Amino acid sequence: MYSIGVDIGGMSVKVGLVDEKGNILCKSVEKTALTPEQVIENLIKQIETLLKEADLSLKEIKGIGIGCPGAINGTTGVVDLLVNLNWNNVPLVNLLKNKLDTTIRISNDANVAVLAEALYGSAKDYNSLVMFTLGTGVGSGIVIDKKLYEGNCSKGAEIGHTTLVLGGKDCPCGRKGCVEQYVSATALISQTKDAMLLDKNSLMWEYVDNKIDNVNGKTAFECAKRGDKTALKVVDTYVCYLAESMINVFNTFRPEAFIIGGGISAQGDYLLNKVVEYCEKFDYGYKCAPKTKILIASLGNDAGIIGASALVRD
Amino acid sequence: MYSIGVDIGGMSVKVGLVDEKGNILCKSVEKTALTPEQVIENLIKQIETLLKEADLSLKEIKGIGIGCPGAINGTTGVVDLLVNLNWNNVPLVNLLKNKLDTTIRISNDANVAVLAEALYGSAKDYNSLVMFTLGTGVGSGIVIDKKLYEGNCSKGAEIGHTTLVLGGKDCPCGRKGCVEQYVSATALISQTKDAMLLDKNSLMWEYVDNKIDNVNGKTAFECAKRGDKTALKVVDTYVCYLAESMINVFNTFRPEAFIIGGGISAQGDYLLNKVVEYCEKFDYGYKCAPKTKILIASLGNDAGIIGASALVRD
Repeated sequence: MYSIGVDIGGMSVKVGLVDEKGNILCKSVEKTALTPEQVIENLIKQIETLLKEADLSLKEIKGIGIGCPGAINGTTGVVDLLVNLNWNNVPLVNLLKNKLDTTIRISNDANVAVLAEALYGSAKDYNSLVMFTLGTGVGSGIVIDKKLYEGNCSKGAEIGHTTLVLGGKDCPCGRKGCVEQYVSATALISQTKDAMLLDKNSLMWEYVDNKIDNVNGKTAFECAKRGDKTALKVVDTYVCYLAESMINVFNTFRPEAFIIGGGISAQGDYLLNKVVEYCEKFDYGYKCAPKTKILIASLGNDAGIIGASALVRD
Repeated sequence: MYSIGVDIGGMSVKVGLVDEKGNILCKSVEKTALTPEQVIENLIKQIETLLKEADLSLKEIKGIGIGCPGAINGTTGVVDLLVNLNWNNVPLVNLLKNKLDTTIRISNDANVAVLAEALYGSAKDYNSLVMFTLGTGVGSGIVIDKKLYEGNCSKGAEIGHTTLVLGGKDCPCGRKGCVEQYVSATALISQTKDAMLLDKNSLMWEYVDNKIDNVNGKTAFECAKRGDKTALKVVDTYVCYLAESMINVFNTFRPEAFIIGGGISAQGDYLLNKVVEYCEKFDYGYKCAPKTKILIASLGNDAGIIGASALVRD
């Protein structure tokens, strides 16, 4: 039986018809509207188009799952806070249910991404896992016994907002030294720029055409691979931040698997090998504790649609 | 139906006959023997004495639960590592099963303490909770939906070994800056001594009869209550370490409740009020996230027996 996965992003709303094995049969992408009403209106059109394309009626699908950024309450179906769209306390599930009579569930975008990887992606052979999505921020999701763990009112799984450096860099959450301030792609870009300003001879300057604004999450990695010492130092420091945050997760959850996702995960084995090496050195109780298998996310941009569709699978 | 709870400690082995409501009917305390064989021999005697006292046979009880320090595998029943007793890879459950034909389960001592509080103590009205036991080290336990979460091969729930201060104080686990190095009673004593050495006029000197070796986990708290500024500074810094570690737990698990146990928890409301005040300021997403109720452990030294007995309840 098919189900529908909806991935609400800041730029676009992606909708897909997904089968039981996590394959996307067809999908639709539209620009994200501003108000909840407009988003819902567009969403209904997108869903109707997909169903028509597949020659299915609403009754013939399992339901609709939605992945959405911001603070979401999976139990009540309310988007408590979505800063980018200026949404406050929007009962998205009920608003949509008034128009479409089917099972509808919602969860945070980082949560649906880990659910997708847990059921159909890198971690499909593992029961418990934690995932970091390394992008503008650090999203995190927790799966225990193949089910999402979201915490009370879905307000857990914010590992990006745990302190790594007490009294460290300011975080918009109000604390200092949060993981997000050291491990996000944004943080890596800032670390790269800082290192470049201290070494005008670094290959990284050539790589970005001498324009520091061209620095992105790949700059340090690509130049480290080409032998630039300053870039390598940036990468190794970043790996330390990431791996220390991951070992914190290992010692807390001892999950069977840990998945690195988001833009930075495009570095693949080069990143993976460094992280694994660091973790093997410092993981607690390593001698008698099972290794947590570290993996790179495999579903890429489709993880949102696939994971959202899985919210209505059980 | 009764079950038996066993609390193996470095100094003593406590055994209790516990009813379904977590009440201890009778108990026995013996000095801890050194070898697993001696511990088991003593344990059998203790259990037989208790059963005789209650006029019960082994068949009339639900089973035997054991709480034990060190690295335990709850699935295999093996004590992987218990440094204090120099135990390595001891199949304690099977050794005991060879002598006593009943259901036998084992878990880490911090885990059984949180289970006791979750089922019969401070948190009996909450479904999900995390507990720190603040003693020589920092034990931690996680309960989700009234069940222990132990991680793969029971090697999770070691939140005392998550980094709070990257590159901070050395920890025996091999990392630096672990929570345990800032939040344990041992750490508080060290913080107290450091502050006293910098202020020879502190009331704390009088409180310990001018002997720094007399400093314990109460020294700073008691003198802070009496208005000593240096003591107050020690307490407030300690509360910052503790509360930051707790907020990390809130943002990760968003549990319904958090319990402070162990020796330091004897400070009761004085400690609780300070911790609650700190957490209210810095908890992430506080406006739309439910408060995690912060509680002081209520079962004291009996938590080990009671929680262990609960391992065989389901």
